[in-house]
Amino acid sequence: MSDQIVGVLGRGQLGRMLASAASLLDIQIVFLNVSEDAPAKQAFASSKHIDGSFKDLQKISELASKVDVLTVEIEHVDVDALDAVKRSHPGVKIYPAPETIRIIQDKFLQKEHLNKHSCPLGEFMSVDPTPGSIKFVTEKLGLPLMLKSRTQAYDGRGNFLLRSLSDTGKAIEALGSGSRPLYAEKYLPFTKELTVMVVRSTSGEVASYPVVETVHKDNICHLVFAPLRTTDTALCKHAETIARNAVKTFEGASIFGVEMFLLEDGTITINEIAPRPHNSGHYTIEACETSQYSNHLRSILSLPIGSTSLKVPASVMLNLIGVSDSMEPIKVVCSKALEVAGASIHLYGKKDCRNGWKMGHITLVAPSDTELRDRLRPLLQVLPSPESSAVNQEKDRQNEIALYTPQRPSPTHSHPQPLISIIMGSDSDLPTMLPASQILARFSIPYKLTIVSAHRTPACLYSFAESASARGVKVIIAGAGGAAHLPGMVAAITGLPVIGVPVRSSTALDGVDSLYSIVQMPRGIPVATVAINNSTNAALLAVRILSTSDPRLLIKMEEYMKEMEGEVIGKVDRIEQSGWGNYEVKKH
Amino acid sequence: MSDQIVGVLGRGQLGRMLASAASLLDIQIVFLNVSEDAPAKQAFASSKHIDGSFKDLQKISELASKVDVLTVEIEHVDVDALDAVKRSHPGVKIYPAPETIRIIQDKFLQKEHLNKHSCPLGEFMSVDPTPGSIKFVTEKLGLPLMLKSRTQAYDGRGNFLLRSLSDTGKAIEALGSGSRPLYAEKYLPFTKELTVMVVRSTSGEVASYPVVETVHKDNICHLVFAPLRTTDTALCKHAETIARNAVKTFEGASIFGVEMFLLEDGTITINEIAPRPHNSGHYTIEACETSQYSNHLRSILSLPIGSTSLKVPASVMLNLIGVSDSMEPIKVVCSKALEVAGASIHLYGKKDCRNGWKMGHITLVAPSDTELRDRLRPLLQVLPSPESSAVNQEKDRQNEIALYTPQRPSPTHSHPQPLISIIMGSDSDLPTMLPASQILARFSIPYKLTIVSAHRTPACLYSFAESASARGVKVIIAGAGGAAHLPGMVAAITGLPVIGVPVRSSTALDGVDSLYSIVQMPRGIPVATVAINNSTNAALLAVRILSTSDPRLLIKMEEYMKEMEGEVIGKVDRIEQSGWGNYEVKKH
Repeated sequence: MSDQIVGVLGRGQLGRMLASAASLLDIQIVFLNVSEDAPAKQAFASSKHIDGSFKDLQKISELASKVDVLTVEIEHVDVDALDAVKRSHPGVKIYPAPETIRIIQDKFLQKEHLNKHSCPLGEFMSVDPTPGSIKFVTEKLGLPLMLKSRTQAYDGRGNFLLRSLSDTGKAIEALGSGSRPLYAEKYLPFTKELTVMVVRSTSGEVASYPVVETVHKDNICHLVFAPLRTTDTALCKHAETIARNAVKTFEGASIFGVEMFLLEDGTITINEIAPRPHNSGHYTIEACETSQYSNHLRSILSLPIGSTSLKVPASVMLNLIGVSDSMEPIKVVCSKALEVAGASIHLYGKKDCRNGWKMGHITLVAPSDTELRDRLRPLLQVLPSPESSAVNQEKDRQNEIALYTPQRPSPTHSHPQPLISIIMGSDSDLPTMLPASQILARFSIPYKLTIVSAHRTPACLYSFAESASARGVKVIIAGAGGAAHLPGMVAAITGLPVIGVPVRSSTALDGVDSLYSIVQMPRGIPVATVAINNSTNAALLAVRILSTSDPRLLIKMEEYMKEMEGEVIGKVDRIEQSGWGNYEVKKH
Repeated sequence: MSDQIVGVLGRGQLGRMLASAASLLDIQIVFLNVSEDAPAKQAFASSKHIDGSFKDLQKISELASKVDVLTVEIEHVDVDALDAVKRSHPGVKIYPAPETIRIIQDKFLQKEHLNKHSCPLGEFMSVDPTPGSIKFVTEKLGLPLMLKSRTQAYDGRGNFLLRSLSDTGKAIEALGSGSRPLYAEKYLPFTKELTVMVVRSTSGEVASYPVVETVHKDNICHLVFAPLRTTDTALCKHAETIARNAVKTFEGASIFGVEMFLLEDGTITINEIAPRPHNSGHYTIEACETSQYSNHLRSILSLPIGSTSLKVPASVMLNLIGVSDSMEPIKVVCSKALEVAGASIHLYGKKDCRNGWKMGHITLVAPSDTELRDRLRPLLQVLPSPESSAVNQEKDRQNEIALYTPQRPSPTHSHPQPLISIIMGSDSDLPTMLPASQILARFSIPYKLTIVSAHRTPACLYSFAESASARGVKVIIAGAGGAAHLPGMVAAITGLPVIGVPVRSSTALDGVDSLYSIVQMPRGIPVATVAINNSTNAALLAVRILSTSDPRLLIKMEEYMKEMEGEVIGKVDRIEQSGWGNYEVKKH
């Protein structure tokens, strides 16, 4: 453990959550705050406070004289002051390194640094805030063109998307009328925004959290889904490698948030990097074995880095952004969250509420993606929007709900986030496979039913099986007849459990052909085979498999078995009453 | 949400953790503290404090005048004072109800109350602190006899186990020399101590957390395992029902810790109840969807009760008890915990350390029981013991480690906390089933291998299958030959997934007899059947099933598949090099 005292430049919710993590480890923190009302100051009396600007050299020196390690919860600090403190207080360690902050706080320098180290980036160029310079750059990078302030930009402030050269004047005005240095980025239409939190120790080792999907609204972080679901299996590993490699290029210990774009062609580019705990990492408090705050402290204090693994199957963070001066709309969301299983409310205790301010967040955890989205839906339904044209807002809300938290479909339609995939070689197998879907509907398990033929659509088969786990599928049920290759081939490509249903497709061999084709797999590749034509049992087996990680499902399965027992006992009674002669046997 | 202000009588770590939960919900707390150095006071500046005794009527009145709801973090408060405040401040709600605290703080009244409401209890009697009265009671309840102080007793203080009447004088002296009222309990040798946390809302509804196993050392809570593992399936439900029924008998909202004994004959008796957050509920912070602290606040503020479900497969809490005036031995454990995945350290920030004081705790979470115990072992290895005869302590430590965190056995021996059970109908099946154990050992999956015969040991079969899930088993692999009933019968009794391995036991039908007996199960009861004699695939299927809840295992499976691919490609190369004529085919 550590007796070192930590000084923090900054005063917001990141500092508050850092203080909470520090208090558990009995690590003392001293904040340098501007305001009496800062969230971090409110929360922890065990942390001390100095009133003053975190850009004021004298105040930073005063802070440095009281602590062993200096860190930041915001990158917009005065790096010259940090350099001066480094010289005047050689015993005080500063993490992240001032040089790292200097590079990162100027987005153009940051891009040049990453580019120099061969990190994947979109094209970018220096630009002056003049019509001529902007026109020159559009000739190189095309239109639309993303113009950005090099410094002091966050939450979308300092960005201007130039769609036509006629807007150049408006752009220059919006970006500080020539007073602030700019640069330009080639406009990249992305399909998703990704973030990876990476922690770097004082010895330079790095560890990464799982890649998450971030959703922005009005340029402010809105939702963070962890882990990322994707059809591209290699994507997660690839994104984490890019993030770790990028962080390795920076000096000093810290946690870093690496924001990335996933482009339409599947490539990943780094958008920007923050050298501190990050909004996309709030979910780690409830969902990971070690929170980003604990790991930031561990990193800057040369303590062992904690496990970055998820401890729950699925989680999402929802930011609570003020829409006016009133906290009431936020409280409505919190009240709803109190009714939602797996919801943890974090209010930051800010004295005032303002439009666009981050007032708190809610983290949801759940045993599956589907359950997670069922839990998120009622919160999105009551989430306030800034006051403007109310009609569009309601439409936007419904679009968002349909996109991120779609309702479970009717029992005869596929779910967009299936836990189980039911596939069959041919539509002629459908009558045999339908009972499986009925069982899954009965247990409220989201599933997708479709046709994949090993022999007629081998490419579909391959991509289906390869991407299944990355899409969040847990179990695959495959029905096939005759030379029934489908289940075995799927099992050969994915590491997920595959259940095979031998379909009696011809009378010639009575389904024994299918059974042998499915069950007699070679050593190394198992298929869980059930009885001929018995897709009911395939679905029940899939439920049993899911119940190994969901005790509530195991209870449901045991109830189902009790019910079957009751049905048989009921038949015994009816035989007793009617006598054997009058008893009519129902066929399945 | 709630704008009500909460007043708390008490000052310890429970109050500190309550304040942490309150700060997230932006609920203001005012503590009534004796000491400047109380853990709750140190931690949260957003909470306010009044200095003074929580037994002082004037101070309680002062507190009541500042808050909307009064609650306690310790039951040893002055109930007459609470009653007086109730009259003088009719607008202030007091939860738990003073009448509930009055009953609970006198353990004899508590027992009488529970007895009146038909809660299961061991025999107990009133006793005077005199040799005559004690002798009289031993004639009724026998020896050894448990003598207890009725009031002000906790962590084993105020208990005396009278083994012989000759110790009567010693007992009276130890229990206050006649100054404190006593009662007696029949001595019940128990096999386990259980606790269920129950939350009761202002409307009288109750919800229970999972039953946990608590382990005491020197009468102080030492370890809490959640969830309880047991061979008795009905036990968990039964314990939770007893706990909820007991809490229903008390007035007012609160969270309650219901401590119980599991006796040798399988019956459960209530030991005692605490009307507040409880040491056995600390694990809920990291391991449950809602913490006990959040639910205590929700209950007393008439907010919706949060989900009490576990969100992780396994967790354990380890108390950090002072052994001297030095924190150093505690810090050694914390330093070790920083190296352990899934460990969350909670230090209470107490200014001084004393022998027997609770200085903090560590909660571990893990994806399985086995992993949990692997994580706990290094902490028990460095846990300090009070200074006394060092030899016995080291022996005690090793016994404890062997009992609670046994080492994984060698690959050819069964694990005490198996995730997979491999069973077979006869020892003649062993050669066929051994490859399954080798695969599980390769993937480091704890398993147990044994013989259970459907036809020769039907009672064993029934009890094995019925208790499997309660023992923590996730998947059962059953091998059988001929009229192979074992897998299907096991699947008919448990709701867990069962994998059947058809064993070719006679040459007459070449194993097809076994295959048909296992695969052709009736609708309702699935057996995941693999190829004849292919126990390798059964084990690989079991690993795939476990990997649905453990992404790291899925990665291992995919690596295994890649390795197989590499082996085949290696053979291709060898055929190319040697030519077909010289290539020797190895048989499996």
